[in-house]
Amino acid sequence: MALLVQKFGGTSVTDTDRMRAVADHVARTRRQGHEVVVVVSAMGKTTDDLIRLANDVSRVQPGREMDMLLTAGERVSTALLCLALAELNVGAASFTGSQAGIITDTTHTRAMILEVKGDRLREALAEGRVPVVAGFQGVSSRRDVTTLGRGGSDTTAVALAATLGAEACEIYTDVSGVFSADPRIVPGAHRLPQLSYEEMLEIAASGGRVLALRSVEFARNHHVPLHVRSSFTWEPGTWVKEENRSMEQAIVSAVTHDTSEAKVTVTGVLDRPGIAARLFRALADRTVNVDMIVQNTSLHGTTDISFTVPKDDLAVSLEVTRELAPQIGASDVTGDSDVGRVSLVGAGMKTHPGVTATMFETLSGEGINIEMISTSSIRISCVVRTDAVEPAVQALHEAFKLA
Amino acid sequence: MALLVQKFGGTSVTDTDRMRAVADHVARTRRQGHEVVVVVSAMGKTTDDLIRLANDVSRVQPGREMDMLLTAGERVSTALLCLALAELNVGAASFTGSQAGIITDTTHTRAMILEVKGDRLREALAEGRVPVVAGFQGVSSRRDVTTLGRGGSDTTAVALAATLGAEACEIYTDVSGVFSADPRIVPGAHRLPQLSYEEMLEIAASGGRVLALRSVEFARNHHVPLHVRSSFTWEPGTWVKEENRSMEQAIVSAVTHDTSEAKVTVTGVLDRPGIAARLFRALADRTVNVDMIVQNTSLHGTTDISFTVPKDDLAVSLEVTRELAPQIGASDVTGDSDVGRVSLVGAGMKTHPGVTATMFETLSGEGINIEMISTSSIRISCVVRTDAVEPAVQALHEAFKLA
Repeated sequence: MALLVQKFGGTSVTDTDRMRAVADHVARTRRQGHEVVVVVSAMGKTTDDLIRLANDVSRVQPGREMDMLLTAGERVSTALLCLALAELNVGAASFTGSQAGIITDTTHTRAMILEVKGDRLREALAEGRVPVVAGFQGVSSRRDVTTLGRGGSDTTAVALAATLGAEACEIYTDVSGVFSADPRIVPGAHRLPQLSYEEMLEIAASGGRVLALRSVEFARNHHVPLHVRSSFTWEPGTWVKEENRSMEQAIVSAVTHDTSEAKVTVTGVLDRPGIAARLFRALADRTVNVDMIVQNTSLHGTTDISFTVPKDDLAVSLEVTRELAPQIGASDVTGDSDVGRVSLVGAGMKTHPGVTATMFETLSGEGINIEMISTSSIRISCVVRTDAVEPAVQALHEAFKLA
Repeated sequence: MALLVQKFGGTSVTDTDRMRAVADHVARTRRQGHEVVVVVSAMGKTTDDLIRLANDVSRVQPGREMDMLLTAGERVSTALLCLALAELNVGAASFTGSQAGIITDTTHTRAMILEVKGDRLREALAEGRVPVVAGFQGVSSRRDVTTLGRGGSDTTAVALAATLGAEACEIYTDVSGVFSADPRIVPGAHRLPQLSYEEMLEIAASGGRVLALRSVEFARNHHVPLHVRSSFTWEPGTWVKEENRSMEQAIVSAVTHDTSEAKVTVTGVLDRPGIAARLFRALADRTVNVDMIVQNTSLHGTTDISFTVPKDDLAVSLEVTRELAPQIGASDVTGDSDVGRVSLVGAGMKTHPGVTATMFETLSGEGINIEMISTSSIRISCVVRTDAVEPAVQALHEAFKLA
């Protein structure tokens, strides 16, 4: 008998039919002899509907009130799932983030978890009941309701799994796992049975949308095995856990892509200590989430810096950078939305130096120009034109024999 | 400068336009120099929608989970109203029942308030902010979310007004106050500028739907002046407060009616101590809410008992009564849905003994047969055929010169 945390996202509880299907699965898991703690998101488009109401009444949206508003969605889901479980004779009890003891800082709309108490969940488990916890939410040290921001329900699930010592944290979603590439672009893409936390982090960071980066980091730090699987087929999906060092590792596990970012290029920046810091501090102060940063070798005392930001942040990024240009000696600042990123991720890359060369040769063979390059020990990313993203993903998937 | 509690029901916040109108009114009240605490219900049909979802997933509906579900509606309203106030530059803060310190017993779906702490509301007021509290909800001594049942938001408002020492509790609704009769039946009915708590209690108990009985009782016990008024015209409405003994009292203030009940008649019951107690205990055990009870004088050691119950409870009432019939010696049990109740309410009745006679003469003059009579010191109620209700109300309104 194991303790499992099962997290169901919005697409898994989009209507009452899906809610009943989830209840069936939880009941089935219990019949198999397991203890279950459930984490549930708001139903389908609930959160979007609430945001629409907020936009209807106000352009001024204090975070504290937005959090109070948005947490209503998960509250409804937890109660409905408990009702659906009651119908199946499974004892259950709903808990808000606050009742579950998820204590956060006071940063509304994207709070960080400080502590998870979980006493009431342990009590419910001891009484033989299934605790059903509202994802995405907590209570601040000031006793206000907070939300955890994007991917928050995954983070709730992982945090509870860590606190309660669960054997695994199952993340149910509308896909059957993590794939070697997006199956809509590469029909031969296959589901990966297992990934290390590091690979999953790189995949999440470079465009794989299945798991939020933050929840994977949390899982890695607390050694929580994740199991990403489908709430439609219920078949086994992709495990994400400690690297299994006894086995030969795949050189490349997946080809990912991301077209949600734009590129900013700052030309002729003074190549002096502190210049880059000033630029990226100014961007951080405007809460721009800078992703890739590439700086070329200095020529004649100046250098070029390129970085990527979410497309929504391009305008503010250009504004900030252009304001700062005189102070950092930049001669030109340009923005470009028509870019995409293609990445290779694989734990085996560390020990296989030829991967980069093969990647560049493959893209070159397709006539694709590389505009930015960035690497980690287990990832290589290239920024290319948007229309080159799909052929690049297809060619790389084939070149590395991932099919 | 006064402290006012303003309560807005579902019809006052049915959509975001109405929500903005409410925010305008709160802002206006603040500009007039008053401190305001707002209590708000769920928007329009939200609660019905949530109940429909519950019925979709389960026939088994544990109260704890229903309460978790239904409290989502008020949560949304409080947050949206705070957002709408933010748009008007009025600082506000939303509070759930739990955050407002409304402590209840553990009777889910119809909890009783045990204590109101209100510390956080006082803090918000001290900071110059408008606390916006979710009506209808509290937290139990077991730390579970509870709801207060029918009329719960009115009760929340009155309880907060009592705790915070508010000058008045304003109940905003879709009518402009309490009327001398239902204006749909009596076109000449007029708004009553002022009523005593006792009169309001009798009006609420005998069919006037404007205020929930329970909230009026609470207001009377804690000496909270109520002001029932319209959230559409915003004009002054009906005050409900301590009887003003220095003034001559109206003999009859209002004619009320109620067609929501059915009548049960038990014939030939043994006229012995304890017989009626057994019957009404059995009904109470099935949570049937018995309203009027009339027992005739004993004839030959047996008596007839008639009582009224909500129409929805008629079937179960007949079942309970028929089961018990052999034990209480009843010879017959009959049910009748085709009845209605017409009542006169007025504080001045106490000192004017002729009212009953005038009432009976008036009904008789219209050819209306009286089937049951029940009186209190300030009310007389007659049960008549359903189709006699409207002519009875019209005739009585005229006979007592209420127009």
